Amino acid sequence: MTPEQRKNFDRLLNPRHIAFVGGADAIVAIGEARRRGFSGEYWPVNPKREDLAGISCFASVDDLPRAPDAVFLAVPRDAAVQTIEKLATMGAGGVVCYTAGFKEAGAEGEAAEHALKEAVGEMALIGPNCYGMINYLDNAALWPFAHGGDCPGYGAAIITQSGMFSSDITMSQRSVPLAYMISAGNQTVLSLEDYIEILSEKPAVRAIGVHIEGLQDIPRFAQVSLKALKLNIPIVALKSGSSDIGRSLTFSHTGSLSGSKELYEALFERTGVISVTSPSQFLETLKYLCVVGAPCGNRVSGFTCSGGGATMLADHAENIGLVFPPFDEDSTNKLISILPSIATVSNPLDYTTPIWGQPEFTAPVFEQAISLSNADATILVQDYPAAGLDESKFLYQNDAIAFADAAAKAETPAAICATIPENMDAETRSHLINLGVAPMQGVHESLNAMAAAANWRQERSRILAHSPKLLKVKAIPETLSILEEVEGKELLSRANISIPAGSDVRGKGVVEAAVQIGFPVVLKMMGPKLAHKTEAGAVELDLQNSEDVSGALERMRLKVTSYNPDAVTDRFLIEKMAEPPIAELFVSIRQDPQFGYAITIGSGGILVELVGDAKTLLLPTSNEEIKGAIASLKVSRLLEGFRGKPKVDLDVLCMSLFNLTEFVLSNLDQITEVEINPLFVYEKEVLAVDVLVHSGRSS
Amino acid sequence: MTPEQRKNFDRLLNPRHIAFVGGADAIVAIGEARRRGFSGEYWPVNPKREDLAGISCFASVDDLPRAPDAVFLAVPRDAAVQTIEKLATMGAGGVVCYTAGFKEAGAEGEAAEHALKEAVGEMALIGPNCYGMINYLDNAALWPFAHGGDCPGYGAAIITQSGMFSSDITMSQRSVPLAYMISAGNQTVLSLEDYIEILSEKPAVRAIGVHIEGLQDIPRFAQVSLKALKLNIPIVALKSGSSDIGRSLTFSHTGSLSGSKELYEALFERTGVISVTSPSQFLETLKYLCVVGAPCGNRVSGFTCSGGGATMLADHAENIGLVFPPFDEDSTNKLISILPSIATVSNPLDYTTPIWGQPEFTAPVFEQAISLSNADATILVQDYPAAGLDESKFLYQNDAIAFADAAAKAETPAAICATIPENMDAETRSHLINLGVAPMQGVHESLNAMAAAANWRQERSRILAHSPKLLKVKAIPETLSILEEVEGKELLSRANISIPAGSDVRGKGVVEAAVQIGFPVVLKMMGPKLAHKTEAGAVELDLQNSEDVSGALERMRLKVTSYNPDAVTDRFLIEKMAEPPIAELFVSIRQDPQFGYAITIGSGGILVELVGDAKTLLLPTSNEEIKGAIASLKVSRLLEGFRGKPKVDLDVLCMSLFNLTEFVLSNLDQITEVEINPLFVYEKEVLAVDVLVHSGRSS
Repeated sequence: MTPEQRKNFDRLLNPRHIAFVGGADAIVAIGEARRRGFSGEYWPVNPKREDLAGISCFASVDDLPRAPDAVFLAVPRDAAVQTIEKLATMGAGGVVCYTAGFKEAGAEGEAAEHALKEAVGEMALIGPNCYGMINYLDNAALWPFAHGGDCPGYGAAIITQSGMFSSDITMSQRSVPLAYMISAGNQTVLSLEDYIEILSEKPAVRAIGVHIEGLQDIPRFAQVSLKALKLNIPIVALKSGSSDIGRSLTFSHTGSLSGSKELYEALFERTGVISVTSPSQFLETLKYLCVVGAPCGNRVSGFTCSGGGATMLADHAENIGLVFPPFDEDSTNKLISILPSIATVSNPLDYTTPIWGQPEFTAPVFEQAISLSNADATILVQDYPAAGLDESKFLYQNDAIAFADAAAKAETPAAICATIPENMDAETRSHLINLGVAPMQGVHESLNAMAAAANWRQERSRILAHSPKLLKVKAIPETLSILEEVEGKELLSRANISIPAGSDVRGKGVVEAAVQIGFPVVLKMMGPKLAHKTEAGAVELDLQNSEDVSGALERMRLKVTSYNPDAVTDRFLIEKMAEPPIAELFVSIRQDPQFGYAITIGSGGILVELVGDAKTLLLPTSNEEIKGAIASLKVSRLLEGFRGKPKVDLDVLCMSLFNLTEFVLSNLDQITEVEINPLFVYEKEVLAVDVLVHSGRSS
Repeated sequence: MTPEQRKNFDRLLNPRHIAFVGGADAIVAIGEARRRGFSGEYWPVNPKREDLAGISCFASVDDLPRAPDAVFLAVPRDAAVQTIEKLATMGAGGVVCYTAGFKEAGAEGEAAEHALKEAVGEMALIGPNCYGMINYLDNAALWPFAHGGDCPGYGAAIITQSGMFSSDITMSQRSVPLAYMISAGNQTVLSLEDYIEILSEKPAVRAIGVHIEGLQDIPRFAQVSLKALKLNIPIVALKSGSSDIGRSLTFSHTGSLSGSKELYEALFERTGVISVTSPSQFLETLKYLCVVGAPCGNRVSGFTCSGGGATMLADHAENIGLVFPPFDEDSTNKLISILPSIATVSNPLDYTTPIWGQPEFTAPVFEQAISLSNADATILVQDYPAAGLDESKFLYQNDAIAFADAAAKAETPAAICATIPENMDAETRSHLINLGVAPMQGVHESLNAMAAAANWRQERSRILAHSPKLLKVKAIPETLSILEEVEGKELLSRANISIPAGSDVRGKGVVEAAVQIGFPVVLKMMGPKLAHKTEAGAVELDLQNSEDVSGALERMRLKVTSYNPDAVTDRFLIEKMAEPPIAELFVSIRQDPQFGYAITIGSGGILVELVGDAKTLLLPTSNEEIKGAIASLKVSRLLEGFRGKPKVDLDVLCMSLFNLTEFVLSNLDQITEVEINPLFVYEKEVLAVDVLVHSGRSS
């Protein structure tokens, strides 16, 4: 993005004048700009009509009084490209290109998209094939459908890859504070990454929501996400298109690659992006972050006026790692003295109906309990009565105000949450936002949002302390061959990964080699058709003496012959049989055209296949990240000294894996892919027992 | 429940007259009966007031014109008991006892609850400590708070253990068809099980929703759930109180034991109860079941008018096992011929905006796609615009009607779902229900409801085909001792579970015994303080010869001495070392005071501890259920012949485990608990390698 383009994007975001080019769609867009209260100049352009929405038309963009800051463009494809060329020449600011039929529509469209890119010059362009942009802060809209949405003077910038989803969000009844809405479309000129970069700098933006079907530039996404992280702006991502059908649909929809779920999760974790899976959770998390920010930790004080609500809070909190710390004896006694006798002191606290709606009694309870629990955040459950059934609403309001005051005094982020999402009306939500309390909808959604926000804050410190390196995605070297295991192991030993003592010998030298290495030994037949040694019968373990070895050699020749006569060779690897390890890991380093290189660390042996116990990190990585990845694995319990077994020195393990990643990155011409399964892990060392290396050279 | 009580409960549900006994709460209850449109007689009772809510009072229940069918009782505790006694004598039908302060309030309350139980006679009594009952079908309410809720002439019967949660549900804006709402309170007389039993017989009830904090009578719950299953009435359970804090809160709230999560899940699976975890999901699942019933299978045809929506459907469906089967080539060509050229044929199908809202084009698409996909259910995604922004609503409605018609023709259960839950207004929901389409809110909630409903139908056939035995919870035998392993194994061998060949010998006889058994062998020291043999160093595996055995014996004595000198004995078990199995299982049979006996089957060794791969079944069980439990385990992939290894004969394995459960149930005096870990599983047999048996006899 050039400085000129950037200036033009600001003109587009907050224009003095908007040209609406087109027919019926332009009329709707004029209406939506009006609905938003756009107070600048409206310039309809249509060669065939007198007026659009009651405003006299210009016949062509050539006739405009000056170059418009913003243009809403909804004319057929080829005309759109021509108009953009004119606008660029005039020095217009930016264009929302609603017109579709570009790269998502086959070869012809692709050519048109190319032409559009050529034509656009230094203008900012949103789309094509998009709904456009709404600026809630400054009241501007270039948007072709009815839209809603509230802005209390700050809010979330939301960027989506589905115009319909953008529209659905503006229609939602959740009072999510909105600052900007951008439907990104094909991202021919400006990309999702550009929007994140620019909008994270706007002072009224408190969080960014991105709906991602597929990213086009992963390293840049990582870069702008880290920038937002530094600026203290959380990003919430709703990634769709992870299923098999979803991936193909995404491609047909926006022409974007959807990528694998694990790689996206690795990207989000690396850059501190909060990942959610449902639209409701997307909105609730953004709302919480915008209204109260991120709590310092995961300790929560909770309030309900019903035992049922308290139980639901406690149940879900336990599932997601939020803690309601219990009150100690002193605190309990203090609370007993100000609660009705039927109340049981606990956290979450059911303050009970006898004092419901009576702030002279509830205020001290809120204040004391928040302060005594020393919590990082607080939440009150209130399901407001529906319109027409709300004679008792003032009682809820009384408690809400008392709760808000107590939380404000304690400077604790506060939420009021309805058990059933819709049991909190618009008036109440708006009132709570004015009180500085997040009006949350749904008990699970609320707790998930709090947990995600608290975790984001913690991750932010962790990530910024070690500022991760930039991702680099180079042209991917072609894999030309699979190295023989012995060669693969040799390469690894250059990366300081220990390998079993071994010899690469002909059949007649096997016994002698075994004696020299010392029993027990392992025998493997090597050959270009023996990548799957176990299935081929090309491995014999735990051979105790020379006779064992001779016998194994004979058996192996027979087995491999019956597996595939062409696979039989006379080349063998004889290795020292390794001692049983504390744990077995699976380690793979591989490449992806979009994400570059990534390491996957998992439980070794059957565990990874049976339970999918694995974690992926993008490269380059750090010791720190590897430590985090290993800690997140189920197999980490084995590493910590399970059932009295010795404990693994994690520093040694992590350093070994880190060195391996650095080694691979420095030798991409020789190594395109590595798989170690298993990697035996001991107290103070690791041993690569089985290794498969794909090489970019011919061997 | 006596026949008389049952008759009285029907009087309470659908009364000719309601006595409202009390002050302010009774006034509210009168208002709510009026709101519901109750057209029978209103009889306020208050000795001090002239009237309640404008109706003249009776001074006492003695003065009532006749025995009331229903009584709403909201007077202080002791007066409540006295009034109930009088009402019972008069022959009143039933009472909603709103009054609290009974067993949930300590010893004094417990005594009062006992007195209440004595006083109630043959009357039906809901509560005490409850909100009461709303009959939406016949328009009667005994309910002390403002309430909402819709009834299209049929609906769900909802029973909760939290009055506030009942109230929250009546306030929800989801158009869940409601038939009855009961807040069960302390269940002193009528229980949740009674309500399920009676309400499942009402013809207008299409599903039952139960909010459970803790059940009082598990076997009865199982029985009435199976009865509902036979009657084709699905039960949806929202179980709360599973967390540590939740359990203690539940007890303080309703005095109910909350029980373990696994046992409840086992109960629900045994009886075909659909289990959900969030309030929204509870309501959405009930709504789907009430409006369209349960689909025959998990194959769905989906429609959207946006690529984003299709992707979200596909993503979540893949996570929960719903299938959107792709169209074959012929079908694809048929659909291409009636879709706009920009559409891509897939399932879910984005029929694209060029035909949006034009039923002359969308109707054939819906009809063809539903019929060609041959799906069990169908879903259309539509986020309706919000009030005031809904100029385009008629276009949505056009497609909705076309979709409903197409689904009706194909006799396929149909849902229309909003991506964001609230993006479907009340008018639309009601309109869809009239069209026979479930108006679903939230894309995840909708798909979850469909999957649960389809699965329920399948489970129903499975369960009814093998009609499970009744649960029996007997007084639990006290565990008096832990059997020595050798005795435990002997017991198991009587249940036809193989055990390793072995000898129970003194130290001096160990080597001779080993020779006799044949090498390799295992040596274990036995003793009352050696329940945890591995930790104590009291096990040595894979001893190859006599010297190994002598050495192991010495080492073991030293190790156990350093573990605990008092634990050392001279009694040893010497056993044949077992061959490596295909898989290791963990099997435990234990007792619970509420649920009786249960078997837990899981991955053996470290897998169960690391990944919690285990499944619990209540006893008595069946071969069928055990097969299902094993199939649900991750370790089942090993049993199916993993990576070319042999396959386990599941019939043999299941029969062995079934026989074990039957053996334990027939020998409860001798066995109170069994743990086998690991149970080695081979192709055609099992072998109990380590066994711990708790016995009810002193040994």
